[in-house]
Amino acid sequence: MSLRGPDVRPIGVFDSGVGGLTVLHECLVTMPHEDFVYLGDHARLPYGPRARDEVRRFAHEIGLFLERRGVKMVVVACNTATAAALPDLQELLTVPVVSVIVPEAHAAVQATRNRRIGLLATELTVETGRYETLVRTLDAGAHLTSLACPRLVPLIEAGDTFSDEIAHDAGVRVTSVACPRLAPAIQNGDPFDERIVAMVREYAAPLKQAGCDTVILGCTHYPLLRPVFQRAFGRDVTLVFSADETAREVAETLARKGFENDAAREGAYRFLTTGDPELFRSLGERFLQLPIAEVEQVEVAELEAVA
Amino acid sequence: MSLRGPDVRPIGVFDSGVGGLTVLHECLVTMPHEDFVYLGDHARLPYGPRARDEVRRFAHEIGLFLERRGVKMVVVACNTATAAALPDLQELLTVPVVSVIVPEAHAAVQATRNRRIGLLATELTVETGRYETLVRTLDAGAHLTSLACPRLVPLIEAGDTFSDEIAHDAGVRVTSVACPRLAPAIQNGDPFDERIVAMVREYAAPLKQAGCDTVILGCTHYPLLRPVFQRAFGRDVTLVFSADETAREVAETLARKGFENDAAREGAYRFLTTGDPELFRSLGERFLQLPIAEVEQVEVAELEAVA
Repeated sequence: MSLRGPDVRPIGVFDSGVGGLTVLHECLVTMPHEDFVYLGDHARLPYGPRARDEVRRFAHEIGLFLERRGVKMVVVACNTATAAALPDLQELLTVPVVSVIVPEAHAAVQATRNRRIGLLATELTVETGRYETLVRTLDAGAHLTSLACPRLVPLIEAGDTFSDEIAHDAGVRVTSVACPRLAPAIQNGDPFDERIVAMVREYAAPLKQAGCDTVILGCTHYPLLRPVFQRAFGRDVTLVFSADETAREVAETLARKGFENDAAREGAYRFLTTGDPELFRSLGERFLQLPIAEVEQVEVAELEAVA
Repeated sequence: MSLRGPDVRPIGVFDSGVGGLTVLHECLVTMPHEDFVYLGDHARLPYGPRARDEVRRFAHEIGLFLERRGVKMVVVACNTATAAALPDLQELLTVPVVSVIVPEAHAAVQATRNRRIGLLATELTVETGRYETLVRTLDAGAHLTSLACPRLVPLIEAGDTFSDEIAHDAGVRVTSVACPRLAPAIQNGDPFDERIVAMVREYAAPLKQAGCDTVILGCTHYPLLRPVFQRAFGRDVTLVFSADETAREVAETLARKGFENDAAREGAYRFLTTGDPELFRSLGERFLQLPIAEVEQVEVAELEAVA
């Protein structure tokens, strides 16, 4: 495969908004030598309350847009879009499409010891039953307990999960600048909103009662609450995150296909939005955990709609 | 997970006969610290021409037998048994069941560049359509071209793939004994039967014509012909073998569950058969590529049948 030389094309990643940046974050950590283009469909978010056909059409438009930009792979970094649009998008595009959901279902089946798996996700994701189908395909003897968490994403986006001070310094840390304000903020600040902690505990309760030893956190927003979830579930429950598992699947897929870029180089990443660039930038840094310098506004819907 | 200490239970592996020993071989290489119990259902082979219900009943009997022997996982190292019995077996047993087919479908979807995947397998495996379902679940835009190869397994079992001299010395090599007869046998012998080479070329032709860049060799017997297949398909076609992918899935699953044995120890492996131990031993060494010292004859059908 190395005979073909490095594959310099970027990887396209999209989501309705900033949630998919947690997936991009894990991709950047796992594949620092790859280039990425991230598109947030801010003009049309949230996808959750929309009809499936509409979400499918948006996914088609964005997939074709990214394909025309020359990406080597499209990553659907949004559980709702995956649940609504995945098979069609794979049939439509020429480049391979990797998404959340499948890697998590696989990881959960591998990880569970008592074969009782829990799922926390948005309403639409739970409704489509896609996790249920996949888990049962991989292990017909596993039991999935699903719970929709409609109130969690709005609270996470409201920005109360950590203080802005922490978020910004956490971003700076990656470029090796000293962080004089970080430790004091963690020690003295009020990093977590008590409402979120209580809500997570409430959502966790039925899954704990069902005896789940493994829980899929099936929404790209949830990694921002990793410690809150782990504390609510306790040390003996394995948590499976979209972001980690999808990054792993992307890396494995590139390696198997021989689509990898030169491992010695440093990759670049850029951001596109269909909405307000400044809003993307300010909210996005908390999700990416890295600075976001520039955001380009683009129009994806100009392409002919493929229904 | 390390808090629980090493999991000393063996891993159960079964097949209708010796084919699954290629899976065991890869498991022994990947997990040298684990113990394995391999059961060959020689009294009732071949499974291929039997009704699905009957194969399902055999798989149930063997699964329960291995579970009572205290295994921590059952590996179905037989494509036919997997295609016929997997979901039921997973529902029946308490321990997790890993099998061929799913890991190969996953690997093939990851590996293909043009999304045209080929499958060579036994008739029953192709008939069940399980590979087709799984490939389409993982990538709805992938195309699978399947071809049943009814004449290949009998020829492989006839033992003409290599001379016995090579097979036996290849076994001895692992225990670090000098192999004075190995190089001459490879150089002067007639390691491959020309009929097999011609047959593989014939089976390969329609998949090459369909433009497949990735081919699943969906039968545990086929690794014995690895170089013959690779030569027939050429360097640009990726071959996916049951044995390699299943061993990888077993290792990942043990790691994720925290079911691993102490990595510093040397594992043991033992062999059971429902048929003639001597026949198992003599044919089995070619498939295992390791010496088989002792084979115990067992009765699995004494258990109550679970239909």
